[in-house]
Amino acid sequence: MTTDQSAEVHAAWLPPEAFRAIGSRRTLVHGAGLLVGTVHQEVEQACARFGGTVRRQEEAAGDICDGTFDLVLALSAPGRSTPGAEAVSAGLREEDGRPLEAIGDEGFVLAREGGVTVVLADTPAGLLYGLFQVVRLGESAFDRDRAAELHRPAVRRRMLDHWDNIDVHPVMGQVERGYSGGSIFWRDGGPRGDLTRVRAYARLLSASGVNAVAVNNVNVHATETRLLTDRLGDVADLAEVFRPYGIRVHLSVNFASPVVLGGLPTADPLDEGVRAWWAEAAGRVYEAIPDFGGFVVKADSEGQPGPFTYGRSHADGANMLAEALRPFDGVVNWRAFVYNHQQDWRDRSTDRARAAFDHFAPLDGEFHSNVIVQVKHGPMDFQVREPVSPVITAMPATRLAVEFQVTQEYTGQQRHVCYLGPMWSEVLGFRPWGPDAATVAAVAAGGSADGTAGGSPDGTGGAEGGGLVAVSNVGDDPYWTGHPLAQANLYAFGRLAWAPQADPLAVLDEWIDLTFVPLVSGDPEPLRRTLHAMMDGSWHSYERCSAPLGVGFMVRPGHHYGPDVDGYEYTPWGTYHFADRDGVGVDRTRASGTGFTGQYPQPWSEVYESPERCPDELLLFFHHVPYGHVLQSGSTVAQHIYDTHFAGAEEASESRRHWEKLGASGLVEPMLYARVLELLDEQVRSAEEWRDQINAYFHRKSGVPDALGRLIP
Amino acid sequence: MTTDQSAEVHAAWLPPEAFRAIGSRRTLVHGAGLLVGTVHQEVEQACARFGGTVRRQEEAAGDICDGTFDLVLALSAPGRSTPGAEAVSAGLREEDGRPLEAIGDEGFVLAREGGVTVVLADTPAGLLYGLFQVVRLGESAFDRDRAAELHRPAVRRRMLDHWDNIDVHPVMGQVERGYSGGSIFWRDGGPRGDLTRVRAYARLLSASGVNAVAVNNVNVHATETRLLTDRLGDVADLAEVFRPYGIRVHLSVNFASPVVLGGLPTADPLDEGVRAWWAEAAGRVYEAIPDFGGFVVKADSEGQPGPFTYGRSHADGANMLAEALRPFDGVVNWRAFVYNHQQDWRDRSTDRARAAFDHFAPLDGEFHSNVIVQVKHGPMDFQVREPVSPVITAMPATRLAVEFQVTQEYTGQQRHVCYLGPMWSEVLGFRPWGPDAATVAAVAAGGSADGTAGGSPDGTGGAEGGGLVAVSNVGDDPYWTGHPLAQANLYAFGRLAWAPQADPLAVLDEWIDLTFVPLVSGDPEPLRRTLHAMMDGSWHSYERCSAPLGVGFMVRPGHHYGPDVDGYEYTPWGTYHFADRDGVGVDRTRASGTGFTGQYPQPWSEVYESPERCPDELLLFFHHVPYGHVLQSGSTVAQHIYDTHFAGAEEASESRRHWEKLGASGLVEPMLYARVLELLDEQVRSAEEWRDQINAYFHRKSGVPDALGRLIP
Repeated sequence: MTTDQSAEVHAAWLPPEAFRAIGSRRTLVHGAGLLVGTVHQEVEQACARFGGTVRRQEEAAGDICDGTFDLVLALSAPGRSTPGAEAVSAGLREEDGRPLEAIGDEGFVLAREGGVTVVLADTPAGLLYGLFQVVRLGESAFDRDRAAELHRPAVRRRMLDHWDNIDVHPVMGQVERGYSGGSIFWRDGGPRGDLTRVRAYARLLSASGVNAVAVNNVNVHATETRLLTDRLGDVADLAEVFRPYGIRVHLSVNFASPVVLGGLPTADPLDEGVRAWWAEAAGRVYEAIPDFGGFVVKADSEGQPGPFTYGRSHADGANMLAEALRPFDGVVNWRAFVYNHQQDWRDRSTDRARAAFDHFAPLDGEFHSNVIVQVKHGPMDFQVREPVSPVITAMPATRLAVEFQVTQEYTGQQRHVCYLGPMWSEVLGFRPWGPDAATVAAVAAGGSADGTAGGSPDGTGGAEGGGLVAVSNVGDDPYWTGHPLAQANLYAFGRLAWAPQADPLAVLDEWIDLTFVPLVSGDPEPLRRTLHAMMDGSWHSYERCSAPLGVGFMVRPGHHYGPDVDGYEYTPWGTYHFADRDGVGVDRTRASGTGFTGQYPQPWSEVYESPERCPDELLLFFHHVPYGHVLQSGSTVAQHIYDTHFAGAEEASESRRHWEKLGASGLVEPMLYARVLELLDEQVRSAEEWRDQINAYFHRKSGVPDALGRLIP
Repeated sequence: MTTDQSAEVHAAWLPPEAFRAIGSRRTLVHGAGLLVGTVHQEVEQACARFGGTVRRQEEAAGDICDGTFDLVLALSAPGRSTPGAEAVSAGLREEDGRPLEAIGDEGFVLAREGGVTVVLADTPAGLLYGLFQVVRLGESAFDRDRAAELHRPAVRRRMLDHWDNIDVHPVMGQVERGYSGGSIFWRDGGPRGDLTRVRAYARLLSASGVNAVAVNNVNVHATETRLLTDRLGDVADLAEVFRPYGIRVHLSVNFASPVVLGGLPTADPLDEGVRAWWAEAAGRVYEAIPDFGGFVVKADSEGQPGPFTYGRSHADGANMLAEALRPFDGVVNWRAFVYNHQQDWRDRSTDRARAAFDHFAPLDGEFHSNVIVQVKHGPMDFQVREPVSPVITAMPATRLAVEFQVTQEYTGQQRHVCYLGPMWSEVLGFRPWGPDAATVAAVAAGGSADGTAGGSPDGTGGAEGGGLVAVSNVGDDPYWTGHPLAQANLYAFGRLAWAPQADPLAVLDEWIDLTFVPLVSGDPEPLRRTLHAMMDGSWHSYERCSAPLGVGFMVRPGHHYGPDVDGYEYTPWGTYHFADRDGVGVDRTRASGTGFTGQYPQPWSEVYESPERCPDELLLFFHHVPYGHVLQSGSTVAQHIYDTHFAGAEEASESRRHWEKLGASGLVEPMLYARVLELLDEQVRSAEEWRDQINAYFHRKSGVPDALGRLIP
């Protein structure tokens, strides 16, 4: 056990200075419950630092707007009448125009009148979210009257999955696809003991809007399997720390647990003994963790066990677990990431992109209501550019969660600056049934986001949403995320899960204003400008650096960092580009390819089918075209490859120049400045490596000269 | 400590049945000394099994040819006159025609007259080698008179290097590039304890002719560094076991030991404190192991420390260690495998092939006489086909050892049958100064092999030879070498080191006759035929499977098994093929390339320079040519690639068919049959993978159709 893990940990988006506006005022915290206690404690700490005062009242006490307080944070739950509270929210209406009857589970109302800023919530969780909204607003929460605003999360379940191992995995390490040091939960085969860091993490997540965390890797190895039984205490300890911040703990489980842990001869989901074993296991979990969230399962995927072993369907497998969890209101997050990872590369008819749809679409309607089918946002695997997964359109009677990857496995591994907010925003706002129908966010939300109901194109009849899920990017690194600027991705995921229609650049502003601005003594504008210059377009910049036009997977096998055009070309992983001397890309059309385009509804089914209409950035995902093919942009494929890679490398250098200039200004703390600078050196080197390898590969293969005559090695 | 590691270990080329001819006869062992004791013990064991008798006499005792014995093994050392012994060797002459005066250190004379087979030796080691020669001859040692034959090793030092780690290395495992399970010396951080297996290994090596073993990896990690000091006892224990078989133990040492172990501020070889430290360390080693062989050093290579750190030359570094060892007659094996492994792949002027010559040739004459510069046989790294390293021609005043790789890193990793005897034989018999000058073997031997003196083209003035060295292929696998047929490589290395001019197929015969034939009850001919059919051409077959025409390195980075044409193309390792849509190969000419051809003396300097005269099998090592280039064989480069890869895969299948047929005959033991069959399945799969990947890569790139219209995926 160590006690020093929180020493010198970066405060991320909750530096004490961000609480100045609250901490220097008079606050009333009103209401009972664990999370109200958290709210009170937060305000109390701020006041201790900045000289304000806080009073806590559990019961009704006078008019909250009588001028005794600058800020009132109050539960408006029935039975705890708070005089004046109704007035604050009077006039608010539901989206359908009805007068507001309830604020709802995690929502809050924020208003300011008569010199008092008021946050009202029906639940303690709502109150906590309201507090963090006031933190975000800072002084502007107090500088003028505000008409009441209703805030509610668009998506009910906003979850982070940790791919953390207890034992250091011989290949994958302590955190699979982790780029931020060790795990904040586990070390060398056991829990870390000191949970200070986990507490700080829970607080950060809560302030971003996340309300669920899975604490172990979806690839569940031997030791991790035992978290379900004899190591359950370790999970309960974590739940204890997450609970005050409104975050429920989930567990990745091994589908073969009844065999591995229970000594049963089978893990067949239709076997009565197996079902009884899981029911008992779930019961024990809820005894230890009454608010336990549920199970996450990667089954029949990349070597993990699953129902296929017993000739059963994924619905059979998921429903069996769902039944075990149902008495306790738990859910099963069942991943749809199922494909043949031992494919013969010679076989061009098998298409990994088709796999999730082919496996899951036929099962629509068969899953229990507490099963959430968790779908990666694209059909492949978190590439820098993919179309939206057609599974999202294919299961109107199933609760779907959409999964993102905050950890930058394929997007620069927290060595490159790559702000992913714009990517997620694009996916969440995508309308897979065309411009007048529901968004991806609406499907995940289950009918409340964007004013359009989800699950089906017309917004009716869809199942309750499954939420948004992402793979976390934190570790025991002092900056949490290796690259300090990668904190923005973690923040943005939570915020976009709460409000998918939010402008990702506004979210970035929030993050900058919380993380950096409170620490700046002078004019923060140059800092804001620099970070925007470096981050706003960084996703597109990384896209320009790496695999072109949506083709994906031109990375070094295994670690997935840096270029290797043929690295996955002749492997069993189903990830090919089929480049030859004449052209490149994967023909996924119905006309002459794998037929994957047919998994989309109209209009995308037609758009993607057509090499002329298919968006440039996805052209090679759907089509094999000659190097001379003219893009919608007017360039050719070969010239586009050259141009974007020269540009990507140049942008990396530019980013470094911006940062160096900022360094001279003294606007950022020297240690953080140095860390980012060092990473920018690597980003520049890596971007040049991408440029030269990709360009050399296609130049050698195509023989097409660069129109601008630049040096291609 | 385990005691069961020798359980069910395969007897390799010393099955008890191979001693039947000796064990059923009357033998006299005459002479004193540890190794004479070993000879006596071997005969005694054989007699216990087969009913013969053995008498041991330390002093002179009657005429050895008086008919009391069928076999006499006698020391003829001065002062121990053995009546009759002189007569046996009378008439033998030295190579220069002088009458034989001494048999020499490890030699022996074998004769049979008057119904007595006699082995005479000047030394106990010679007697032991003579015994194993009688074992090889079997009944034919006793079936007719034999004129006296003088046997002497052509090469004095015949050494195996073990790349075994004490600690399991996180990437490289217990044995770096080991394909035969764990180490027979070390396990999980310490010695294995039970040395039964090491004793059996020593015996096998002795029977093959090896007389030196380095017991730890040339990449010397932390724990292994300590073998020099506080873990020296572990080395002494091994030396104890190797000693009775005439094998001296060597140690790979960390050049930074004075810093790491001694706490000195520097490891500068010219620093007096450093020199004193090494002298003292060497003294302690020889106190513990009086017959210790010496140090093996990989310095300034692939991240290992070395004299460059201190601005010193490799001669400075090696000589410093040599001085420490000189009082004890120890040697330094200093590896010439020095190159820039962080090369920029864009830089076509840097050529890894040049590196060893560029580093070492200028140092000729500067090394002490007990420094052996250990040169890999080719200029790159144990590829299936390379030219002979020009370093071998460049250092006439330096003792050179030539290094082979018995462990099949780049030649099928003991999953493919690949008998390397023919490759080594070709290298050893190569005449780098042209047809009338010395061979590579003569350089390694230092003036005694092939009747031609080594070290320089005219055979005069060369330094004493440095010997032959190879990386071992054994592990704790029950068959020693993973693939049972890979035992032949270990055997052949020893035999070719003893007699470089031997026909490698005759050596294979010896191995078959020792390993398999004694266990066969019926006609062994079908077995011999099958093994020859599978093994004789297996090196060429693997060459056909893999990287074509000497270009090399088209393997998966890291583990080096299986194809990946571009795997090393854009890496810092200096291993490129430069394939583009027009052609392939590395231009190493003086005319237009890296000038590497200029490192060779005439005639090869001219032969390699010319794309017309350069041997086909090395064409792409020396030249970048168009796919349509016509080879001396009459085929084109592209068609050669297709043809050889189709052939390589077909040969693998044929090999499996041979083996299956043998299985039906019952001529091999079922377990061994099954092991080989399983490996042949993998060989067939792998050969087809090579075929399809290499052909697809070049077909996609060149666009050249296969003249025979075969399917290329």
